[in-house]
Amino acid sequence: MKNPENFYQLTVNLLNERGVKLSDIEELVYGLQKAYIHPLTHEAMQESIHKILQKREVQNAVITGVELDKLAEQHKLSEPLQSIMEKDEPLYGCDEVLTFSITNLYGSIGFTNYGYIDKVKPGILKWLNDKSTGRVNVFLDDLVGAIAAAAASRLAHTNPDLEDDSIYSSPKNED
Amino acid sequence: MKNPENFYQLTVNLLNERGVKLSDIEELVYGLQKAYIHPLTHEAMQESIHKILQKREVQNAVITGVELDKLAEQHKLSEPLQSIMEKDEPLYGCDEVLTFSITNLYGSIGFTNYGYIDKVKPGILKWLNDKSTGRVNVFLDDLVGAIAAAAASRLAHTNPDLEDDSIYSSPKNED
Amino acid sequence: MKNPENFYQLTVNLLNERGVKLSDIEELVYGLQKAYIHPLTHEAMQESIHKILQKREVQNAVITGVELDKLAEQHKLSEPLQSIMEKDEPLYGCDEVLTFSITNLYGSIGFTNYGYIDKVKPGILKWLNDKSTGRVNVFLDDLVGAIAAAAASRLAHTNPDLEDDSIYSSPKNED
Amino acid sequence: MKNPENFYQLTVNLLNERGVKLSDIEELVYGLQKAYIHPLTHEAMQESIHKILQKREVQNAVITGVELDKLAEQHKLSEPLQSIMEKDEPLYGCDEVLTFSITNLYGSIGFTNYGYIDKVKPGILKWLNDKSTGRVNVFLDDLVGAIAAAAASRLAHTNPDLEDDSIYSSPKNED
Repeated sequence: MKNPENFYQLTVNLLNERGVKLSDIEELVYGLQKAYIHPLTHEAMQESIHKILQKREVQNAVITGVELDKLAEQHKLSEPLQSIMEKDEPLYGCDEVLTFSITNLYGSIGFTNYGYIDKVKPGILKWLNDKSTGRVNVFLDDLVGAIAAAAASRLAHTNPDLEDDSIYSSPKNED
Repeated sequence: MKNPENFYQLTVNLLNERGVKLSDIEELVYGLQKAYIHPLTHEAMQESIHKILQKREVQNAVITGVELDKLAEQHKLSEPLQSIMEKDEPLYGCDEVLTFSITNLYGSIGFTNYGYIDKVKPGILKWLNDKSTGRVNVFLDDLVGAIAAAAASRLAHTNPDLEDDSIYSSPKNED
Repeated sequence: MKNPENFYQLTVNLLNERGVKLSDIEELVYGLQKAYIHPLTHEAMQESIHKILQKREVQNAVITGVELDKLAEQHKLSEPLQSIMEKDEPLYGCDEVLTFSITNLYGSIGFTNYGYIDKVKPGILKWLNDKSTGRVNVFLDDLVGAIAAAAASRLAHTNPDLEDDSIYSSPKNED
Repeated sequence: MKNPENFYQLTVNLLNERGVKLSDIEELVYGLQKAYIHPLTHEAMQESIHKILQKREVQNAVITGVELDKLAEQHKLSEPLQSIMEKDEPLYGCDEVLTFSITNLYGSIGFTNYGYIDKVKPGILKWLNDKSTGRVNVFLDDLVGAIAAAAASRLAHTNPDLEDDSIYSSPKNED
């Protein structure tokens, strides 16, 4: 895997395999930021999602969380973890804890955005939480929400409309 | 201050002085948990808020954040912090970071609850964010949201309705 | 599992099965707190470890992390996660992220304590990191360090010697 | 403040004013990474510190924490915060909480590094903790430790020696 894009591509492939397209994530980002940034272009949102998915911490979290989801779906986990994941126990919080390395990436706005969409569950997040599909997405829904929240937070941090030049330095340094 | 209740009382007094009654926080907790716990009694919500406000980390966060709000209101901070606080700069995140020690107290549900009400701003949070009052509540609104989120999370963790006895141990151990 | 102690017992059993005795954790706690608390009794340290292991978040983290360790040992994970875990990749951070729900439990002292023993690796932590045993303890060593750090932090928060009565309220409220 | 470097420069000036030179931070970074990266050049360490100090979250944390230190030194804080800061109360944790936005910046290694130097207190951190100077550095010592920890963590993430090309993607994407 000498190609620098390989882990990025593997992460995108894992998301696709589990039914999540990058355009689904873009839709979540749009919902979070449309009220704040004008115009909010496809290019800007896609670049932001791309940057988030290139982060090693994000790649590691996706690889680990999706593995647990798949193993649960295949009934290959030990008890009681197997039952906890199948029932998506409301007090099991390891899925949310694993997203801390993602929501943290671009400042504290990421936390608020994540909490909001994790509770409201718009778009793809509603589908991921639909237990009637028979799929286990205990970790995936939190990972996808966190990626969207971080991408939205990064847009906020790099958007001149939100900057007050009389107070803050250039967003060019923020990447 | 030999009385064990003194720091608790001082924290409640600071909240009151800044216009936040415990019943305002209870209203936020009710909004967060009414869909999940039946019945959701005043006694249970008040006990949960009481427990949160007895935690030293919470008391320290309130004392520190409210001090910064009051100093900003009195124009006693150095630049550029004075301007950042007066304008409630959207990218200033120290207020949200300071709440981490509160939202963390009863597990990861606290994070989601906090993100949600910080974005939707129900009840007292809307009033705290009303800039037309001339008051500076940069830290206070996040502290109040975090206290409510933690109290709601604690209720979720101690509520038998949310427990699956076949999987989890007794909530009695959770305090 | 009606018995409230069952998840606690299951967690202790998992630790024992992987070679970690509660007395090993007590040794770590002793190393962290011996300079600060006198006398530092077995009873106090054991009670503190017991309280930490009764927390649902801790039980969930141990159950999840040890499962991943065991699956890696049995070569049952998909690539690239299998290789990452076998090699204990230095930049894989999901193990440390998973401990956030443990180190957070009793305030920010837990973070410092965790960072310290995770770097110095005293006692059982050294053995857990010994790759020559053929075992995979990628998650376990961080979990054990975090449990010890949280137990030490809880002792600090409940110890009257560290209290200044003229400033703080009673530690009795802190549990 | 149209100049993109202004907030960076203001942060460096605040550190200098409080007795912390960038070379002091470089010394801490060297201590944390010398065992892992060869050669560990001045240029690489300085660039890493520079990148950390350009982050808005870091600038905000330094501006806020140093303000509180200075106000405490000038006896301008209300009680009980004034006494808490003067005595550097061991259970006051807002200083450590405020560093979460810094230690998080480059992954979980930052947490471990921070916990370690916060406990061992090498170099400038020892001086900052010397109460006999009459200065209040409750927040500053944690901020400096966190900046060094994050800079060391960023070096680890961008250093090819720590990469396993057969597993990970290029560090070039990590900035």
